[in-house]
Amino acid sequence: MVRQRKSVNTVHAKDVVIVYLDTKRHFLVQATKNVKFSTDLGMIELNDIIGKPYGYVGETHLGKSFYCLRPSHADIMFKAKRSTTVVYPKDLGLIILETAIGPGSRVIDIGTGSGVMALVLARLVAPDGMVFTYERRKEFIETARQNIERAGCVKQVTFHHCDAVEKGFTEKDVDAVFIDVPEPWAVVPNACKTLKGGHHLASWSPNIEQVKRTVESLEEHQFTRIKVSSVVEQEMLVRQQGVRPRERGITHTAYLVRANKIETPNTKL
Amino acid sequence: MVRQRKSVNTVHAKDVVIVYLDTKRHFLVQATKNVKFSTDLGMIELNDIIGKPYGYVGETHLGKSFYCLRPSHADIMFKAKRSTTVVYPKDLGLIILETAIGPGSRVIDIGTGSGVMALVLARLVAPDGMVFTYERRKEFIETARQNIERAGCVKQVTFHHCDAVEKGFTEKDVDAVFIDVPEPWAVVPNACKTLKGGHHLASWSPNIEQVKRTVESLEEHQFTRIKVSSVVEQEMLVRQQGVRPRERGITHTAYLVRANKIETPNTKL
Amino acid sequence: MVRQRKSVNTVHAKDVVIVYLDTKRHFLVQATKNVKFSTDLGMIELNDIIGKPYGYVGETHLGKSFYCLRPSHADIMFKAKRSTTVVYPKDLGLIILETAIGPGSRVIDIGTGSGVMALVLARLVAPDGMVFTYERRKEFIETARQNIERAGCVKQVTFHHCDAVEKGFTEKDVDAVFIDVPEPWAVVPNACKTLKGGHHLASWSPNIEQVKRTVESLEEHQFTRIKVSSVVEQEMLVRQQGVRPRERGITHTAYLVRANKIETPNTKL
Amino acid sequence: MVRQRKSVNTVHAKDVVIVYLDTKRHFLVQATKNVKFSTDLGMIELNDIIGKPYGYVGETHLGKSFYCLRPSHADIMFKAKRSTTVVYPKDLGLIILETAIGPGSRVIDIGTGSGVMALVLARLVAPDGMVFTYERRKEFIETARQNIERAGCVKQVTFHHCDAVEKGFTEKDVDAVFIDVPEPWAVVPNACKTLKGGHHLASWSPNIEQVKRTVESLEEHQFTRIKVSSVVEQEMLVRQQGVRPRERGITHTAYLVRANKIETPNTKL
Repeated sequence: MVRQRKSVNTVHAKDVVIVYLDTKRHFLVQATKNVKFSTDLGMIELNDIIGKPYGYVGETHLGKSFYCLRPSHADIMFKAKRSTTVVYPKDLGLIILETAIGPGSRVIDIGTGSGVMALVLARLVAPDGMVFTYERRKEFIETARQNIERAGCVKQVTFHHCDAVEKGFTEKDVDAVFIDVPEPWAVVPNACKTLKGGHHLASWSPNIEQVKRTVESLEEHQFTRIKVSSVVEQEMLVRQQGVRPRERGITHTAYLVRANKIETPNTKL
Repeated sequence: MVRQRKSVNTVHAKDVVIVYLDTKRHFLVQATKNVKFSTDLGMIELNDIIGKPYGYVGETHLGKSFYCLRPSHADIMFKAKRSTTVVYPKDLGLIILETAIGPGSRVIDIGTGSGVMALVLARLVAPDGMVFTYERRKEFIETARQNIERAGCVKQVTFHHCDAVEKGFTEKDVDAVFIDVPEPWAVVPNACKTLKGGHHLASWSPNIEQVKRTVESLEEHQFTRIKVSSVVEQEMLVRQQGVRPRERGITHTAYLVRANKIETPNTKL
Repeated sequence: MVRQRKSVNTVHAKDVVIVYLDTKRHFLVQATKNVKFSTDLGMIELNDIIGKPYGYVGETHLGKSFYCLRPSHADIMFKAKRSTTVVYPKDLGLIILETAIGPGSRVIDIGTGSGVMALVLARLVAPDGMVFTYERRKEFIETARQNIERAGCVKQVTFHHCDAVEKGFTEKDVDAVFIDVPEPWAVVPNACKTLKGGHHLASWSPNIEQVKRTVESLEEHQFTRIKVSSVVEQEMLVRQQGVRPRERGITHTAYLVRANKIETPNTKL
Repeated sequence: MVRQRKSVNTVHAKDVVIVYLDTKRHFLVQATKNVKFSTDLGMIELNDIIGKPYGYVGETHLGKSFYCLRPSHADIMFKAKRSTTVVYPKDLGLIILETAIGPGSRVIDIGTGSGVMALVLARLVAPDGMVFTYERRKEFIETARQNIERAGCVKQVTFHHCDAVEKGFTEKDVDAVFIDVPEPWAVVPNACKTLKGGHHLASWSPNIEQVKRTVESLEEHQFTRIKVSSVVEQEMLVRQQGVRPRERGITHTAYLVRANKIETPNTKL
């Protein structure tokens, strides 16, 4: 029984693992047979890690130690191939907790972009839920699909190549809507139609003007409890010789907008 | 079929809903038959909301509108009965994304406290996963169990009344360990034994000294990729007449520590 | 000689001192003969502190120790009588260093408000400089004058009861202009006329929209090197049992705008 | 009279000016006769700016416009030759306002480093005040002197090549003490002897451990009203197409410690 669980913790061929050498050298690598992975501190035979447990300590051909670690959701977000800016774990984590989604939820994600948001949502709504992801630029969908396949969650994602501002959403009564497009206010009317009453919409945008216009649109379209905030993560350096915040870092990514849909009197019945 | 889904979005007796009057008046209320809920802007007959859809717009007996909203994970965190300080959504959201947990995961949560962390984790690992929660102060467990029952996820939680520093953990090969106790460093040795190789441990503490000692303990016990940060959420006031950050707010909750377990050479095989 | 300096450090009648009991009880008090000063921890005879050195340790009639401390510029800012919001030391300190003012400078301050900014500027340009302060609401000027007299720097302040947007400024070739009015953009054209070429203008406003409009006005009126930022001060609790940031605090006061005036080709000669 | 003032605003030979081309190209330049100043957007004949007013708009030999601006205190801080890290305007500005210094003050600055703090203090205590600056590493003093001479305030600075921890300070009854050394706690006993009662000490350090030890030393040596904080400046991008905080920036420089000296009963008389 213990053995069986152990085997669950074995690196199998095609698994995606973090190969961690040090704070500046960590890679998301697919464990592919008969392939070598090169770093500036030496080469790694991927055959060498297949069949080993996660947490395995290996060595490059130059003798540098490396660790095989289980990728977190955040790792997969940061290491995805991206053609666009990407939502950060600090932002997405908060947004997810400010909805009620979990295993079995049906959610909409617009726009798909590099697929990063869809894949994290897909992992959290598995095995019975579904992420319906909308993108109007065809070229993005292929990269997104690759990222999501590599993360092992393509079964929980339905791709729509479609302009949701003009055509709307196919699904009805979804549990949450996540918006990451340059003009979120334009999507709000259709998002309102597709979202369950009382449930959660979230949107993010880098600029204040986008937020202001989105809030105005939410106020006009049956949304209440509108909340806007931004999140800053400050890394700390914790060392024997002294603890202090890191001196430089990311100071802004996006403003997060959240709201709940209400039923208007005439839609109530 | 559509109808069936609609019915899923109906407020049933015993459901827990957010009753939202305005930004200062929002309550987590269990929809109990023949019970009245009082606010300073009037009384609400809970019979009136049972059978209505989420998003329903009702009125207190004084004519003030209220909305029935679906509680988010964050709502349930903030509105839980608590005898201790509580983890914030901004912190827990990031931490969850920096692990690989999702439906089916088996995780450890220590200490239980008011049960807030356990209940959010339970919702995310449902229906087949399990949260093993450890608490050595018996008086906390009862409140925690009530909070978790009210949130509808008691099936995914196993309670242990036990001092895990001395006795260790019963489970083996768990997918993640979450630590929220005053002396996290003391739990690290046993956490290391119970955690799968390559997987994630997370801990939070308000003070720098706690963090420093925890990091030292992680370095001594087969952990790598240790990362420490703190997260600040800045609320924005978005109004027609002017947009600005809120002038006062929460400026610190906790430092977050994360690490991955490695297998030592002799545990590898 | 040493004695003479000592006497400089003596509390004289009419001096303004900080009476400090503890972190929650500190007062800006004028040392007035035959007057008692009451606190909830006892009464202080002000005769008792006159003639004592700064740093003197006294006792209230209930036996609680207090200290007579030299007020900082920041103390005088925070303890001034105010009818308006007030600039913070974290903001004004940065702004001052981003100008070239010092002893002898001639500067404009608009609007006067409670006089807090004028009095700090007056202390820094003494003894030969001058602060020209403009206010269109007569009722503010009297309070401002009292605050500035109490701070002992009324000789360095010239009051103008005047609407500078319509009437402009009397002075020419001032070394810096400081703007704290609700519509800073409206003052920019006249500020441009009164400011020396190459010198510094600073403005602050709580809302983003004010900042955007002010920046546009600066761009239209011979200003360059326009810079906008905000400053957050995070208080730290440093205690034997643990160090951490304070949990609640001020998270926003104002956006700071700075710019330098250029000479246009036709004004150059 | 107006003419006379105008002449004060003329760039004279040996003046130090900001030559500003754009946000990435701005230089602190000494206006030296018969010297050329080179930039990647063309060469500037410095003869061309001598005799012109501040705010003058010139052109490089490649036709790029540049502006001659009056350097702020902050410019001189950032553009000084430095062999050490340097205090930031956001930190020094706050600290200055949390003392009572101004024209005529006598203050101590330890250690001298690149002289940046001494030169700003010197400008603010001119013409009759004095900055006594202490440095034990001889090689720093020469660079500091050059920086201070270039800023035109060497008359207000007295240099001491001396280890103040061991030898103490020569001056008595100074108005403020500013400490920027790696072990501030070691300077506190001598700082206490040299500082006027009731007056202000300020210290800054990057690491938490330094702060904790300094606070302990202040508590042991007649200091009260001890306050610690850090200051973060967030730059804003204000553009026609959208306003947002800059995405990357400086997130930590130093923790600021402030305290007031008290007189003990036996030193009172």
